[in-house]
This record gives sequence, C-alpha cells and structure tokens, in this order.
Amino acid sequence: MEPSRIKNPDLAALVDENEMAWYRYVAPISEHYASLIAKRDYRGKRLAYWGHIVLENTIPMVLALKQAGVEVVMGACNVDSTNDVAAAYAASQGIRVYGWRGMSQADYQENLRLVRAFEADYLCDMGGELSEAYLDRQPPVKGALEATTSGLNLLKGRDLPFPVFDWNSIPLKERLENRFHVGDGVWPAFSHVTGLGLFGRRVLVIGYGPVGKGIAERARNLGALVHVSDLDPVKMIEARHHGCEAVGLEEGLARCQVIVTATGFEGVLREEHLRQVRPGTIVFNAGHSNREIDIDWLARQPHQRMKAHIERYEIGEKFLFLLAKGSLLNLAASDSAHGLDLFDHYTAVMLLGIAWMFDEMPADIRPGLQPYPAHLEREIAALSVRIHGGGG
Amino acid sequence: MEPSRIKNPDLAALVDENEMAWYRYVAPISEHYASLIAKRDYRGKRLAYWGHIVLENTIPMVLALKQAGVEVVMGACNVDSTNDVAAAYAASQGIRVYGWRGMSQADYQENLRLVRAFEADYLCDMGGELSEAYLDRQPPVKGALEATTSGLNLLKGRDLPFPVFDWNSIPLKERLENRFHVGDGVWPAFSHVTGLGLFGRRVLVIGYGPVGKGIAERARNLGALVHVSDLDPVKMIEARHHGCEAVGLEEGLARCQVIVTATGFEGVLREEHLRQVRPGTIVFNAGHSNREIDIDWLARQPHQRMKAHIERYEIGEKFLFLLAKGSLLNLAASDSAHGLDLFDHYTAVMLLGIAWMFDEMPADIRPGLQPYPAHLEREIAALSVRIHGGGG
Amino acid sequence: MEPSRIKNPDLAALVDENEMAWYRYVAPISEHYASLIAKRDYRGKRLAYWGHIVLENTIPMVLALKQAGVEVVMGACNVDSTNDVAAAYAASQGIRVYGWRGMSQADYQENLRLVRAFEADYLCDMGGELSEAYLDRQPPVKGALEATTSGLNLLKGRDLPFPVFDWNSIPLKERLENRFHVGDGVWPAFSHVTGLGLFGRRVLVIGYGPVGKGIAERARNLGALVHVSDLDPVKMIEARHHGCEAVGLEEGLARCQVIVTATGFEGVLREEHLRQVRPGTIVFNAGHSNREIDIDWLARQPHQRMKAHIERYEIGEKFLFLLAKGSLLNLAASDSAHGLDLFDHYTAVMLLGIAWMFDEMPADIRPGLQPYPAHLEREIAALSVRIHGGGG
Amino acid sequence: MEPSRIKNPDLAALVDENEMAWYRYVAPISEHYASLIAKRDYRGKRLAYWGHIVLENTIPMVLALKQAGVEVVMGACNVDSTNDVAAAYAASQGIRVYGWRGMSQADYQENLRLVRAFEADYLCDMGGELSEAYLDRQPPVKGALEATTSGLNLLKGRDLPFPVFDWNSIPLKERLENRFHVGDGVWPAFSHVTGLGLFGRRVLVIGYGPVGKGIAERARNLGALVHVSDLDPVKMIEARHHGCEAVGLEEGLARCQVIVTATGFEGVLREEHLRQVRPGTIVFNAGHSNREIDIDWLARQPHQRMKAHIERYEIGEKFLFLLAKGSLLNLAASDSAHGLDLFDHYTAVMLLGIAWMFDEMPADIRPGLQPYPAHLEREIAALSVRIHGGGG
Repeated sequence: MEPSRIKNPDLAALVDENEMAWYRYVAPISEHYASLIAKRDYRGKRLAYWGHIVLENTIPMVLALKQAGVEVVMGACNVDSTNDVAAAYAASQGIRVYGWRGMSQADYQENLRLVRAFEADYLCDMGGELSEAYLDRQPPVKGALEATTSGLNLLKGRDLPFPVFDWNSIPLKERLENRFHVGDGVWPAFSHVTGLGLFGRRVLVIGYGPVGKGIAERARNLGALVHVSDLDPVKMIEARHHGCEAVGLEEGLARCQVIVTATGFEGVLREEHLRQVRPGTIVFNAGHSNREIDIDWLARQPHQRMKAHIERYEIGEKFLFLLAKGSLLNLAASDSAHGLDLFDHYTAVMLLGIAWMFDEMPADIRPGLQPYPAHLEREIAALSVRIHGGGG
Repeated sequence: MEPSRIKNPDLAALVDENEMAWYRYVAPISEHYASLIAKRDYRGKRLAYWGHIVLENTIPMVLALKQAGVEVVMGACNVDSTNDVAAAYAASQGIRVYGWRGMSQADYQENLRLVRAFEADYLCDMGGELSEAYLDRQPPVKGALEATTSGLNLLKGRDLPFPVFDWNSIPLKERLENRFHVGDGVWPAFSHVTGLGLFGRRVLVIGYGPVGKGIAERARNLGALVHVSDLDPVKMIEARHHGCEAVGLEEGLARCQVIVTATGFEGVLREEHLRQVRPGTIVFNAGHSNREIDIDWLARQPHQRMKAHIERYEIGEKFLFLLAKGSLLNLAASDSAHGLDLFDHYTAVMLLGIAWMFDEMPADIRPGLQPYPAHLEREIAALSVRIHGGGG
Repeated sequence: MEPSRIKNPDLAALVDENEMAWYRYVAPISEHYASLIAKRDYRGKRLAYWGHIVLENTIPMVLALKQAGVEVVMGACNVDSTNDVAAAYAASQGIRVYGWRGMSQADYQENLRLVRAFEADYLCDMGGELSEAYLDRQPPVKGALEATTSGLNLLKGRDLPFPVFDWNSIPLKERLENRFHVGDGVWPAFSHVTGLGLFGRRVLVIGYGPVGKGIAERARNLGALVHVSDLDPVKMIEARHHGCEAVGLEEGLARCQVIVTATGFEGVLREEHLRQVRPGTIVFNAGHSNREIDIDWLARQPHQRMKAHIERYEIGEKFLFLLAKGSLLNLAASDSAHGLDLFDHYTAVMLLGIAWMFDEMPADIRPGLQPYPAHLEREIAALSVRIHGGGG
Repeated sequence: MEPSRIKNPDLAALVDENEMAWYRYVAPISEHYASLIAKRDYRGKRLAYWGHIVLENTIPMVLALKQAGVEVVMGACNVDSTNDVAAAYAASQGIRVYGWRGMSQADYQENLRLVRAFEADYLCDMGGELSEAYLDRQPPVKGALEATTSGLNLLKGRDLPFPVFDWNSIPLKERLENRFHVGDGVWPAFSHVTGLGLFGRRVLVIGYGPVGKGIAERARNLGALVHVSDLDPVKMIEARHHGCEAVGLEEGLARCQVIVTATGFEGVLREEHLRQVRPGTIVFNAGHSNREIDIDWLARQPHQRMKAHIERYEIGEKFLFLLAKGSLLNLAASDSAHGLDLFDHYTAVMLLGIAWMFDEMPADIRPGLQPYPAHLEREIAALSVRIHGGGG
C-alpha cells in the first residue's frame, strides 16, 4: 500500500507530550475507554478512518486502536482542517495518513482513492464519502459509523450492502452539540476578530433551530438585545418566550447591528437583503453551509480587507462588514480548540462504536442505515454524569 | 333535555362586563377568531363541550359559538376547576351547563350522562371521557377535538367510529405550554404560599422533561442554585449545560432546601426518599399527577397545618413541609389566572378546530385519532407573531 | 395612659399559632436574637415603636421585648398597612397599640400624640415623625433608630437633642432591599393583577437607581425586552451593559407595552408623556412616591375600572391602563407577604439596635444623626451567611 | 533631546491603514473628539504621555494631538504591554517614543528619566510615576491626568505642586470598567487557554468587589455553578442574591474545580490554601495584583509546563494547574484586543481632559489631587448614549 501523504513527517517532533497529556486530561470519558481498548487484542481488524485529523481528539483515539493491534488508515475529510503536526505524529506511530491542510480538491479525491485501496473491514466516516467509496467492496465491509447529516443524506438513497450506524441523530449529539457548542464558540470568535463586546448591541439571529437557539441564548447572556427571524411562526413564539424579539427578516435587517445566519440553508441573505442592512452592519455565518450568505454577489461589490477575517463591502451608498468570508465563524476564525470537554463525548461514541462492531455486533445485523446502539450512548452519558455531575 | 345543573343561577349577576372586556383584551388571538365566527351562520350545529369552565377563556369562546347559532352544551371536566359565576353566566345566555365547584364524583358522572344525552354532532373534549361516552352514538358524531395526553391514552386502544383531532401534540402546545407555562406559574405560587424568595436557595428539580426544564430555568433566573435529577443521563448532561448541578436523587435530597417533582410519574418520592431530606425541607409537586409524592404515607405521619397550603410532617426526628398537599402547586395554590396570553393560543386552537369541523373537514375523513390540521396551527401562530412579535 | 386604639380586640383570637410558627421559622436570624433578648432583664426600659404593624415581623419582635420586661408602646406609621389581627394580638399581650387599617389622617395624628404621651426613653421609628414628636421631651430620649430616607430627610435640618441611629444607609439595607426586594415583588404582583406574563413584552423602566436596576434585571430574567430611560447618561451606559436597551423617554414611551416608574421623584409621567404612549399600554409605579405618575390629570380623563387594580383611561383617541392607581404596585396589589427571608435581616437590625441602646451605647454619645453601629450590622450579616450561605 | 528608544523603527511599515481604520470605526466616541481636536491649534503645548502603547487606542489619540500641533513625548508604563509596531509607527510620525516589549527594569527607569527630561507642561499618566518624576520641575507642570488606583495611592501622600486630575474614580470608569470589562475578557481567555467551557463547572470567585461581581455574573451566564467567597458578609449576602453560592474559603477550595482570585490584595491564596484544593483544580488570577496567588511558594514545588499559559504543580499527592503564572489572565493570555467599544470611552476621557487643561482649566486651580471635571465625563457619556443607545 501507498505510504502516507502528509505535509512533512518531521513535524512529528513538534508534538509536546505535556500538551498531549493536557488534551487527555480534559477528555476523561474517551480517555477511560481509550485505556480499556488499548489493552485488548484487536489484531487483524482493519479500520479506515475518514475525519478531521487534529491533536486533541483524533490522536488519543487512533493510538489506542493502534495499540490494541488494529490496522488503522486515516484520511482527512476536509481540505482545511488538518493539523499537520497531528498527521505527522500519527504517521510516526506507524499509521498511514492521507491529508494535509490546504490540499487541492484533486489531492483530496486521490487520498480518498488511496484509503479505499486499503480494503478496510470497518469504517469510521464523517461525511459519507468513505462509505460511498466502499460500496463496491467485495465482500462488503462489516460495519461503518457515520457522524454527519450530510453523510446521512448522501447515503440515504443508496443501496447499502453493509450496516451504517448513524450517531448524528443520537440525543447525546443532537441535544448538546448544535444546541450549545456553536453558540459557545461563535461569540468568543466574534470578539476575537472584531475587538467588540455584545453589551447592548442589537443582534439578529436568522434561523431558530438548535444552532440558532444556542447562538441567541448565549448572545443574550452576553448582554445583547437579541432579535430572531424564522419562517416557522411557532419558532418565533418560542423565541419570544426565550426573551428575544421576534421580527420579520426585513425589520430585523433594518434594525440590527450584527447579523448571523444559522439556518442550514443556502442563499438566505441575498442581494435584496444585503442592500437593506444598516450602514456598518457586521454580518457572519454560523450555519452548516458556507453559502448561507451570497458571497458571490458580495464578491462583485467593491471591497477591501480591514484586518484578519474582516472584509468591508460597499453596497451603493452603504457598507457592511463580512466576517470570515461567510464561512462558519467559530471554525474559521477561532484560534484555538474549544469545547474539548463536550467533544470528549463524541470521541467516546466513536471508540465504543468501533469496539462494539469488532466484538458485539450481531452477525445477522441488517445492512443499511441503522441507529447507533442506544446502550452505548447511555453508558457514555452515564459515565459523563459520574465524572462531571454529582457532587464529589 | 335536562335544564342546567349549576351552583346558583343568580351568580350570573356577579359578572363584571369590564372584567370580561379585560379578558378579551388580553386574548387578542382568540378574540379575533371569536368575532369572525360569531358572525357566521352555524344554526343546526350541535356541539358538546367538556372542559374547564372559567371566565377567562371559556366564556368568550362559547358565546361566539352561541351567537353564530351553534347549539352548545357544556360540562365541567374537573370537579374542582369550575368558576360558578362563569357557569351561571353561560346558563344565563341560554347555554345548558352541567358542573359546579366541589361536586361529587357521582354528580360528575351524572353530568357526563346528561351531556351525552344531548346527542351532539361535534365534541370539544378535555380528557377523553366525553368522546368515550359518545362511542355508541348512532350515527357517529362527525368529529371531536381532544386536548390532553390522558385523553389520548384513554382513546388510544378504542375502536373510534369518528375522527378525534389531537391538539395535545401540536408544536404550539408541546413546545410552549409545558416548557414555559408551568415554570412561570409555579414560583410565584411558591412565594405566595411561603413568603420566601428563591435567592441563593438550593432547589432540586426531579425530572428534566419540558416541565422540569421550565421550572429549573425559571428558578435559576430567580436566583436559586438549581440541582436536577433525572434517570436519563443525557438529560443530566443537558441540565449541566443549562447551568444546573446534575445530582443523583440521594445527593439532591441530602443537599437541597426546596424539592419539586416534575416527572409525570407516580410515587417518585416515597418513604425512603422522604426520610432522607434535610430537616425543614419544603417539598411540592408540579408534575402531571397529584401523586408524584407519596401523600398516603405522609398522611400517616404526625402532621399539622401551618398556614394555607403548608403542612408540616414529622418524620422521625426530622420534619418537612409539603405544599398544597402534593397537588400541582401552580394550580392548587395560585389565587389568580395567569398566563392568559399563552392560553389565548389554545382557545384559538379550539375555536378554529370547531369551525373547521363544521365547514371544511373532508367528508371522507378517516375515523380514529388524527393530527390536528397543521394549517390551522400555523395560521394561529402566524397571527400571534403579527400581534405580539415584530416591532410596530 | 390611654388604652389601645385598635379596630377590634376580638380579632386577637384569629391568630393562628401555627402560622406564627411559620413566620418565625422563615426568619431564623431575627428569631435567634429574639430568643436571646427575651431572656434578658430589660425591666424599666420604655420603648416607643412607630412602624408597620403586621404579623410576620412585628409581633415576634415586640413579644421578645415585652418578655424581657420592656414597656413597649406601638403606633402604626401608615394609615393602610396595619394588620388589625396583629394589632389586636399585640394588645392582647399587654402592649398598648395605636392604629388600624384605614384610619383617617386625624386619627393618625391623634395616635402619634398618644404615643408621644407615653414619654418613652427609646424610640424605634420609621419615617421620622416619632422622633420629631419627641424633640421636646425633657430629659431627651436616650436614643432612636430610624429606618427610612424620608425620615432622615425630615430630621436632617433639625436640632436633635438625642442620637438617632440611621439604619437606612447601612450596606445591608442599601445593597439588598431596594436592589432586590422591589423587583422581586413587583412582577408577581403584575401577573397577579393582569393575568399576563412578561415573555417577549417590551417593558420600559424609568429610573435606573437600585430599584430600577432590580426591576429591570428581574423583568429581563422573566423574558421581557427591557428598555431603560434615565437622565444620567452613565446609568444609561450601565443599563446597556446589563442587556437593556437604553432609550430616551419619548422613544421608550412610543415603543413599550408596559411602563414602570422607579425614579423616586414626583411628576415623572405627566400629561405630555401619557399622551404619547401606545394604545393599550399598561402603566404602573414602583418608586418611593405614589405620585411619580400624574394621577390627578389622569383622574380628569374618562376612565373606568376593569377589574381589581386595573383602571382604563381614555386619552383622546388612545387609552391606557393604570395599575393600583399609581401606588407602589408590589405593596398595593400583592395579596401576600413576600420576601420574609430578606426582611428577617431588618427585624434583626432593629432588635439588636434596641438592645445595644439599652446595654452598650456609650454614655457620652453625641446627639444628632449617627451611623448605625457597624459591628451589629456585621454580626447580623455574618449570622445570615452561617445560616443561609455555606454548604451545610 | 534624545531620539526615540524603540525596538525597531522599520516595524512602522507593518501598520495596515485598513486595520487602523477598523480601530477608528469601533471607537466612534474618541474618534469624534480626535477629529475635532486635530483641527485646533495647540502649537506650543508640550505633553508627556506615560501609558500603554498599542495600536487601538493610543495611536489615534496621539496622532490627533500631534496634528493639532502639540509636542508629544510617549513612554511605556509597562515593560510588557508595548506593541512595538505601534511604537515604531508613532515614532515615524515625528513623536518621540520610549519603550518596547520586554525591556528591562533598568531600561524602564532610563526611559522615565528621558521623558522627564522633555520638560513637559502637561502630563497624561498611568500609574503616577510620571507625575512623581515631575514633582521637582520648575515652574511646575500646569496639569496632569491620572488613570489608576495605584497611581493615586502613590501620589496621595506627596506634596503636589500641580493639579492631578483623577479619572480613576469617575462613575464612567468605576461602574463600567472593573464591573464589566474584566469578566467579559477573563472567560474567553480561560477557554482559549484550556479548551474548556464553563458549563456545569463549579467555579470559585474569591473577592466580590466590582471585578469579582463581573467575573461571577459572566461565569453564571456561561453556565457555571458559581461560588463566591469574601470576607465581608454583606457581600456574601449580595452574592447569594445574584444566584451564587456563598461559601467560606475552605469550603470553596474543597468543592470547586476552577478558582479565580479577584481581591486586589496580595497573598490571598497561600500554601495552606493551595494544599486544600481538589486534585486537578485550575487556578488563576484576575485581580489587580500579579501576586494574589503565592507564586513563589508554587515555584518551589515540582512543576512542568503543559502548554502555553498552563503550568502543572505537584503539591504532595495532589496537583493543580496555574494559568498565566498568576498574572491577570485576561491581559496575559488573551491573543487579541477586546472591549474596544468600552475603552473608547476612556480614550475620550483622556483626549477631552487634555484639551480642557489646554483651553479651559481655571488659572487659579488648586494644586493636588482633584476630581476629573464632571461636565466632561457627562458629555462623553451623553455622546455614547446618542451613538450606541437609543433606537436609530
């Protein structure tokens, strides 16, 4: 098989064992399972991992699997998210790794092809592309994990010859990650980029699903005057009950000083909306798509970079500021990992799911999309409560 | 048909038209529909209403129907909730009414029999007993509305010869009423009864469904140190993310000064739990059942009334205070209507549902439990947003 | 000396010892000192009390003094606040009492004259009128306590022949009572009277001193969209930092649905302002004066009573609702004692202050306004922390 | 006079005019005054500035003064806070600048000597050292501004031959900066350094003055279980009313997972306290002094660096993590300017104060510490309200 394709193997030397110890320390749930799994004998198991490659979660997980004897191959599921030090470090531990920050789309596809060539028996996927690539494997892979809505959408219509366990829809992820994690990260990133606080600022949150709720709640707690716009009138009434001002989109655009999209849809803020904002409005996106704001139209207006992550656009007589070019602000403009304690749960979900596929998955399990085993989720949540909750 | 059975017809004179005008004023959504419906010609329609009979919501609704020519008969769905002035007033307007505050269970059943004898074509039910009583009508009634979980449970197993439209499960009710209304009412009732604030008090909320969430959120906003106990560990993690301390039940009992049950189950606090509370703990219930706390066991311990709605129980060397004898505190110990603006939505749901059954229900609708028409819910929510939301 | 002048001595029989036990139970700080003081020998001490006469705080305090042998005479400092059962009960215990609910201004003055005739050596005053009445006593009284700003203002210019200890300005009162107690009581009273919640409602708080801050904070916690108007621009900036919208008075009047005055000044809302409110606005007062709103002008507009504590006024084409006729809403429209745990501190302040004047006050203390002894305040606060704070 | 002493004059080329435009844009209040003052004729005025030298506030202020003809000399008041690009840029504009990041204490003193040698007529000081250095100037300087508590303490006992205007004590600074700014910055820095959120974490805030209040309030809003310890029992009761658990120091140390000092005193956490914390506790400082935690004792325990700003100390069998080596976390570990909108007010305070000393200061003003002119503060606050508050 092909050797690793990474930025630079020498970067492995930059890994600081103390820093790794910190990341393990703040992830006690997955660390608990990692240390159990590392002691097992999983020799002969072949696993392909397709996901983000970072120091904080990925490395402890794959090292534990490696230590148990699993043959692991890793590919980066995103052209931008790879920490090249982490990739080099994994490679230095005898894991084949494919991916680097800033790779081209062609390289991305080539990497996917190479991970497919590994002929894994088990998959740990984020985005569905790995499962899709393995559809034609004979015999079929024994099982796969899938983490994302877009992955599920991609696989939904396909005739899957193997079971894919959906852990995107488990309460532990649905009720926590979107609801809390984005809002918790977006406003520190906003302040980091702009230098501004939220005190007394009129903020418009477009979209009041879990992501929008979290963003709105956090903004209100930071002192903002939060306005909410959503097409669903029941959500508008909910927003009022959470202390937000429910407004029509036009009214919100006309009144607010900071506007954030969190709808999950593309093209939410288009030319006709962007022309309506108050002069000097700060606009950014925190939804799933990088195209909730029509950045193509904006790109055709006169614009200039103010500072890192702030672009100024002239729209007729007016101007607005766009942050992070319309990408998800908390991912694009944050300078540090955050929410490690929350992600700890999801690393555990992957680890336990993989071990369960190895050890306990019924032989006669049906192929196709399946729910992630509820007893594993419950076990992880219960451990979290024992560690974090309760008095102690 | 039998004449009305009410406390005293003369009480109708106590109705203050100005007070009624206030109740209409603070219910603009249902008032909007009531005024439209009052102008229609519904002569020949026969409707039986089985629900609470109070001035604030019931009277404007049934008067509008009456004015449109509907023949309405009303029965009280609860032996304690009837406002006898409201009942007398409805009777004075030519509506037959069956129910009074404090009636016996036998009278309750007799009233149900009398309302059944009316041979209505349409039902507006709370609790399922009216629909059950009409199961044998020939030809079957044309349609029914049902408002409650217990009603749905009662009817679920039955072979229904007519459609029953469930408006208990619509988002407008599920996402608002339990989530906000109980919490909003429970703590003012607590302060009204005890004279105490929540500042700095350790409060244990048992059960973290929508009702528990609302109670916990409101308590935290009132300055309490909120602890949450729930059997579902994912809910425990949610509670932590809402700023509550997640505790095991035993630990919560040992630490907290105020304990509230909100589980929806019976027998949540039993002898073994009640023996563990700190001396002087204040205990009350805000769940669906009046038996979340084992009041039978408590009744066998030495006890005395301290003041209205406060009973002191001796448990060995310890003592605790139970509020409202374990009934739902916000209903039992509140001295005034509250949340009229929220209930406004539900009066509109009933009014629009009745009019839709009269006018638009497809002739070939299937019998059995059916969802309440989504377009009606959406219309009501949109009107609410127009009236309450937005800037103006 | 004149016998008691009260509503009806027979009312003493209505006192429920269990209810009294509850009031003692929820006031552990003052109860601690009351039980200590009751055991002392204060025979020969003559104390005049001029204050509110209610069951919850007053009775346990005066009974402890009485039990220690103090000769106590009580007069009601307010024509409306007396609980006639409490007055009768005190009288039944051998204390002379002067005052009843609804007495005339002439009776009030006559009662003050009678308490003055007692020739007390020590005073416990609320409002300064008792101290003023005693200015001419020879020899001068030995010491007095004063609880209110208006009392201090009344006495400030006078040539006081005895020391008056000001406990209005101690941090324990300044930082807690105004800041928390009013806001905590005002919104439950609002909901009690109107039947409405605050969710999503635009509320204007006029005046952002401690009272206004507490009202605004609590309203925001109850889900309101809080607007603040204050003449001091620094307070406006503070309001923004607390998540409120700072607005000019005119703008606030034009936008808000609920308006509350909390300035401490008279004539804040006058004709020109009341003409500007939105139709249907609910207006009330929570400041120190009952005349923050120009009720004389309103009284000349067409008006009608809607229900208890709600009056509707027509102003040209518009109308508004005034609650509690412009009196302090939390006092006028609350149906129950609240904040007993907070007031517990102040009962202790009086008790300890009285005992200190008896026992420890230096013989050579200067006459005139003096600070309340800081070590007593500190002792009370420390006991509060031991009882309520800390883990236990 | 000596030329500038800075890191590297070539760094001036790194200034990005667009970034400067952003800093001006988010500081509309001081920008307003800067543009007015830049047009005046202040030739012949000699001003020494002793303060932080950064791009965001300092440069626009001194450029405006320079443009008006003022002769300005700048010195850095802190060995670590200088932005060397800003210093180079100021020097490139013809201003003499003394200071660079990481200078020695000896260089610091030498710089102070050089700024003293300028023989300024007006001073703008942070920390009092500049004013102290100028005590012997003959004739005395005409006026000085002082920004800090420590500066006021330094000057308090001295016989000042010129007026020093204290803007540390103005409400605009006292009620906003400490109360909001530290809390707003400290928790994002915490998450930046540790990767952790505050959800459900037990946090102990030691000291409940304005700084502690802001830190506690913000932590609670971020989902923490906030505990407060303060020697003043009234502050403890206040903390309870703000929804915090008031605890003794020992109890707080034994229960909490994150501990922050905010007392303003040195030696608050000493050996005996540090031995009591739970294993793995995260400790940091947000008070005025860098020595609230006994870092000397900690330095003698076995320790190692985990990652940037996190040190692990072994204390017997236990271990704890100290952030930023005990320095103020929000200053030491923040990677970006924040609160620019709040600091905007203080830049305006300096600018307006300087112009007032030039133009309007009475000739017969008394030497010594004087309050900053109240009408200037009011004007700035009113402009802030016009710009930020109100509806628009």
